[in-house]
Amino acid sequence: MQDKISRWQGLIPEEDLAAYRKGAFGRRVGIGARPALLNIDTTFMFVDPAYDMCGREMPELIAAVTRVTDVFRRLGLPIYYSRRDDRSHPTYRGIWNLKLGNAAEFQYATDPRADQWPDAYGPRPSDRIILKNKPSAFFATPLESFLRYDGVDTVVVIGVSTSGCVRAAVTDAFSHNFRVIVVEEAVGDRSPAAHRANLFDMDMKFADVEPIDRVLAEVEMRFAPARAAE
Amino acid sequence: MQDKISRWQGLIPEEDLAAYRKGAFGRRVGIGARPALLNIDTTFMFVDPAYDMCGREMPELIAAVTRVTDVFRRLGLPIYYSRRDDRSHPTYRGIWNLKLGNAAEFQYATDPRADQWPDAYGPRPSDRIILKNKPSAFFATPLESFLRYDGVDTVVVIGVSTSGCVRAAVTDAFSHNFRVIVVEEAVGDRSPAAHRANLFDMDMKFADVEPIDRVLAEVEMRFAPARAAE
Amino acid sequence: MQDKISRWQGLIPEEDLAAYRKGAFGRRVGIGARPALLNIDTTFMFVDPAYDMCGREMPELIAAVTRVTDVFRRLGLPIYYSRRDDRSHPTYRGIWNLKLGNAAEFQYATDPRADQWPDAYGPRPSDRIILKNKPSAFFATPLESFLRYDGVDTVVVIGVSTSGCVRAAVTDAFSHNFRVIVVEEAVGDRSPAAHRANLFDMDMKFADVEPIDRVLAEVEMRFAPARAAE
Amino acid sequence: MQDKISRWQGLIPEEDLAAYRKGAFGRRVGIGARPALLNIDTTFMFVDPAYDMCGREMPELIAAVTRVTDVFRRLGLPIYYSRRDDRSHPTYRGIWNLKLGNAAEFQYATDPRADQWPDAYGPRPSDRIILKNKPSAFFATPLESFLRYDGVDTVVVIGVSTSGCVRAAVTDAFSHNFRVIVVEEAVGDRSPAAHRANLFDMDMKFADVEPIDRVLAEVEMRFAPARAAE
Repeated sequence: MQDKISRWQGLIPEEDLAAYRKGAFGRRVGIGARPALLNIDTTFMFVDPAYDMCGREMPELIAAVTRVTDVFRRLGLPIYYSRRDDRSHPTYRGIWNLKLGNAAEFQYATDPRADQWPDAYGPRPSDRIILKNKPSAFFATPLESFLRYDGVDTVVVIGVSTSGCVRAAVTDAFSHNFRVIVVEEAVGDRSPAAHRANLFDMDMKFADVEPIDRVLAEVEMRFAPARAAE
Repeated sequence: MQDKISRWQGLIPEEDLAAYRKGAFGRRVGIGARPALLNIDTTFMFVDPAYDMCGREMPELIAAVTRVTDVFRRLGLPIYYSRRDDRSHPTYRGIWNLKLGNAAEFQYATDPRADQWPDAYGPRPSDRIILKNKPSAFFATPLESFLRYDGVDTVVVIGVSTSGCVRAAVTDAFSHNFRVIVVEEAVGDRSPAAHRANLFDMDMKFADVEPIDRVLAEVEMRFAPARAAE
Repeated sequence: MQDKISRWQGLIPEEDLAAYRKGAFGRRVGIGARPALLNIDTTFMFVDPAYDMCGREMPELIAAVTRVTDVFRRLGLPIYYSRRDDRSHPTYRGIWNLKLGNAAEFQYATDPRADQWPDAYGPRPSDRIILKNKPSAFFATPLESFLRYDGVDTVVVIGVSTSGCVRAAVTDAFSHNFRVIVVEEAVGDRSPAAHRANLFDMDMKFADVEPIDRVLAEVEMRFAPARAAE
Repeated sequence: MQDKISRWQGLIPEEDLAAYRKGAFGRRVGIGARPALLNIDTTFMFVDPAYDMCGREMPELIAAVTRVTDVFRRLGLPIYYSRRDDRSHPTYRGIWNLKLGNAAEFQYATDPRADQWPDAYGPRPSDRIILKNKPSAFFATPLESFLRYDGVDTVVVIGVSTSGCVRAAVTDAFSHNFRVIVVEEAVGDRSPAAHRANLFDMDMKFADVEPIDRVLAEVEMRFAPARAAE
């Protein structure tokens, strides 16, 4: 029950799984006393194929993101959204200037919609927004201190991309000693291969990668309005 | 020449590569004015199969690590080694207590050799050692500030594991605006599948994944003794 | 009752106090749900006048540090000690090399006692030790993440020096959104003038500077064994 | 020449100065290879007495800030400005909610001018702006990584207040192993007593507190256009 390794059979070579078993990886961390939702970079720039930074249409992802958001909002649990900060100055972009070609296109400087969210799951005034310069929503941002002020011990992660900003935030949340849950259907990537490989890494080492039904069932059961109203 | 995407043909599905091309990923960053070597977790615990945390024998990795180290040492370039810090108190282990089973075994508390390095490439008194509690050698350590004091702008990464501590350090080094070079033959993983997937992610987004011959040729040519003596 | 400004009358010019009143500074933060004790740099090097880094004999300080420690230990509340990390490599000392003269003396490299604590209040195996390179016990250390793992929301600060490492840790603890209490009699400084000025700054902006009797009375009352045993 | 302690005679008790001499404090760090200007919180909210957060008129401070800014701008050296980030959500204010009374007033939420700068020395499009939630411009911001990208090794600090955000940024800049210069006439505080005490602390431990004429003379001489154009 506690071993999460067997679910990866067929997707990851059996001899690789044996190495993880030997190292005792992949136990389940679980949801703690107070979860928050962390929605990573689901702005139009990354979920609307009209933008080059988005790999493809992802309707199932958007449905799952919306569904998870609705539950957290209804229960009054804290919700955080990350998106890129201002990219107008070369210094703000930093090494991105070297690693990403065509930085002008990357910026979408003349299109404010790029940094907005679809209404279905976008932020409300009661939510917190984190502007970030680098992949992780924790890197050089106040997210860690905001979560302490809000009394959060568990971060439930949704958004894009699994192999980039989701992975980076999950690693940092783990390192800050948060319990981390990744909602499998509510994270996505422009590359299905990279998506699967990163889910495996996170499930073995840093987080519980869990199906949406299981996560929402536990959240609904444990954080009913009486508690959420505190 | 600048596009690093085509080298992944055959290893990553072609339609995934097309998505990365559309986003203009995968340019080459290059070595800057002063590189340092960062050797991640190559203690006996992770490279000697006598320990459960090591996946398998990796003689090619050890040969490559030794070769890179010899060049940096001969040129007088700064060398940093990371390893785990003291794990004797539950608080020092943090969420590892939940994610890794059998924490007692994980500690190897009674075997000091677990945290030592083979003589072939291990630290000398002139080197710097970073003790860390979490995957990234940058997380909650003075590594970033040490590199500033040493005037370093480029981090050349070697060690284990590609999908864990190497990936985490590379992401953070990129976020701190270092140029990052991963020496392909000198990083390793208990899972070949995870190794390849993470090399791809890093090469596309955060670092130059380069063959050892190319990296050492450039370092030898550009950082000859006259400069190294500064 | 909430205004802490009036207690500084006579020590700080009245017109300065008026400026703080106008800015609405100096309210009381209070102790939250779970306090921890943070003992800053009370090693022999800083409390024994045999060492040049210590300004003078401080018997009242040592008595107060011991008294606070005894209460936290008896109640089973978490206790953290900070001290300097290894200073053997120039890179580990960093800019200290330039700002402090006579760095060799500063190190006390040949005297391990410099970095030990008197038995009266020194760490026990159940305590956590933080090694630091710079003034703040939070800077480039895992202290923030340790406190999260231990469920701590309030940091009670004791130790030396008020104008150096105590002030730096208090500022950072405040910034991480901890509640911070400074025990007035249990912090000390080589300069009485700097001591008083920094207590004022912290009391106005970052922390509650409180007398030892009041702090211990509240801790004893609120965190009796039943709770401490959790 | 290197000892900065003697200049404090008459302002700090002689026996306190003796303790600092014994500890070998107060050497001069000097300007390194590439300085940047860091202007702390000189928005209307803090320099215009129409706002309660400002202690008093400070015409000499404003003249000095303008003069330093003009030199750095003319030489093409990088300039950074910090100001508070959005305070509209309770979580964004964090523990400020408890320590500062009358948080609504603190916000000046309905007055956008509060967060703007006077034209005389305010930011131009070529400058970098850092939004911060806590006293230090380095805490939970990308400032450290921006400075690396810009190749900066020395931070010249101006702004307000000496005992609050200036002190916090100076401590952090020192901890990140930057050389730090505080321009004495170009930093100010609502309390003259706190101003002087904090200048002393910084001059002894973390930074060179220097007169404006000396700093600008060295910057003009060493970073003339030929170099600034690089």
